[in-house]
Amino acid sequence: MGQRPSHVELVDVGPRDGLQNDDKILPTETKVSLIRRIAAAGIRRIEVTSFVNPKRVPQMADAEDLLAALRDLSDVQLSGLVLNERGFDRAAATGVLDEVTYAIVATETFSQRNQGSTIAQNVANWRKISDLAKGGGLFRSATIAAAFGCPFEGEVPVSQVVELAGAIAEAGADEISLADTIGVAAPHDVEERFAAVAQAVPGIRLRAHFHNTRNTGYANADAAIRSGVQTLDSSLGGIGGCPFAPGSVGNIATEDLVYMLDRSKVATGASLEGLREASLWLQEQLGRKLPSLVKEVSAFPRSGETSRELV
Amino acid sequence: MGQRPSHVELVDVGPRDGLQNDDKILPTETKVSLIRRIAAAGIRRIEVTSFVNPKRVPQMADAEDLLAALRDLSDVQLSGLVLNERGFDRAAATGVLDEVTYAIVATETFSQRNQGSTIAQNVANWRKISDLAKGGGLFRSATIAAAFGCPFEGEVPVSQVVELAGAIAEAGADEISLADTIGVAAPHDVEERFAAVAQAVPGIRLRAHFHNTRNTGYANADAAIRSGVQTLDSSLGGIGGCPFAPGSVGNIATEDLVYMLDRSKVATGASLEGLREASLWLQEQLGRKLPSLVKEVSAFPRSGETSRELV
Repeated sequence: MGQRPSHVELVDVGPRDGLQNDDKILPTETKVSLIRRIAAAGIRRIEVTSFVNPKRVPQMADAEDLLAALRDLSDVQLSGLVLNERGFDRAAATGVLDEVTYAIVATETFSQRNQGSTIAQNVANWRKISDLAKGGGLFRSATIAAAFGCPFEGEVPVSQVVELAGAIAEAGADEISLADTIGVAAPHDVEERFAAVAQAVPGIRLRAHFHNTRNTGYANADAAIRSGVQTLDSSLGGIGGCPFAPGSVGNIATEDLVYMLDRSKVATGASLEGLREASLWLQEQLGRKLPSLVKEVSAFPRSGETSRELV
Repeated sequence: MGQRPSHVELVDVGPRDGLQNDDKILPTETKVSLIRRIAAAGIRRIEVTSFVNPKRVPQMADAEDLLAALRDLSDVQLSGLVLNERGFDRAAATGVLDEVTYAIVATETFSQRNQGSTIAQNVANWRKISDLAKGGGLFRSATIAAAFGCPFEGEVPVSQVVELAGAIAEAGADEISLADTIGVAAPHDVEERFAAVAQAVPGIRLRAHFHNTRNTGYANADAAIRSGVQTLDSSLGGIGGCPFAPGSVGNIATEDLVYMLDRSKVATGASLEGLREASLWLQEQLGRKLPSLVKEVSAFPRSGETSRELV
């Protein structure tokens, strides 16, 4: 395990991963405002929507309208989740999307229960999407879901993740992400799995997606960047990411991650103050308290706080 | 910065640091039950009370009665906060306490506003307590409060912390703790400060006290043990530790810390399941939701969870 890098890339996944899991469906104009606020705070990569069946995911039914309204955001890499060729065609037709993402689950049980297909079928499906994306000049990012643990099978062997990463790389990918879908990873797991995957797929960018379900998400993010991961996912306010228990903690929050990275001398290009303001705005839009913490207290350093007890 | 150790010592500070900051005053018998539950879950060091003016801190007015009821807990190192010679005499008279703790703030402004005395006066005061404790055969632990940032002065120079650690060591101490009193530290700060202090006071045990106010507490704990810290503070349920904003997050939680350490192959001697049960019990006693997360979800691995969306 090495030192922290001087810079790390962040992807705010809130507009897709966060809003897709929210009971409240935001109007397209509010989503556009959210994405613009995230971009204005300096985040240069945003997962904005998914091109899936609008009957199954009504929160993302406005994908085309959303992208049309983001046409001028040329300095931000806009990504969308695509599950099949039809989804890819819709994504490509927008003329605005820069990146397609896809998820393959690391275990057979979870894959078949959640996606209705085997791991091998999903790799074959990704190969088609990847070929199309390459032809269309889009960045291709594939996620290994449940890479740190499975709700059905429990522990996921490192070898299983490495093998799947190899198959994804062989099918074609610019980037491979390991996602802690159920929020069970600890720093040791992160170091072990990314070291093994990096060795197996040299030359492919590595990305990490952590949930703070058991309070290990930020420690995992720190372990990931010390393990060669170049890109971290997070969501403004910490929205989304936790389909298992409504109200519990999911995605690590962009502003809290930026606070930690700022103070650890890792540049992100983002403005903590801009993110805090955007997060407080988002909290108003969603009408509930969001799980991020930095927005609840003062930035540091600032003067004027008082105390009544020590340590 | 090195590797994780194979073992780390935990101090549950909840019965003192947690309950002292709670509006609800628990009956002595409930405190006894809490301490016994923490001990039964395998924690071998517990900060149980403070020997201070009961008019100023009514939550700790039962210090003598509490210690009398813990006489048989001979396999647990019981510690108490002591601020002066009178407090030491009370602590020693119990015949049960194993350890005295004391706090010296790293900055003059905070020291004078909170304790009404200068740093030099506090070091001199500690020298008296330390001498008495040594004579009485008690373990002597001194905490540098606001070691990572001050609510009045902002950034605290590393040199200031190192100088104070040297003065404390010279006055006499078995252990020095750096406390992130206002919850602003990030892993880089932790590594930098503990490396500098370790060099300045060789042979003295190092201890860390983190708050999760800005979601960095667990990452900081991981950084601390990779930086030579032998002992970590935490509190069951994550109670206490945050005098600044009621309802916001303070101490890192013992059960969440143990979850992270268990999965990172760092032994603590504690039982995660025992801690989760104790934390749920404490939540009932205090009648409010406590900030720890592991108790809210399943342990891992276990089977039977379901999902509705991936990544």
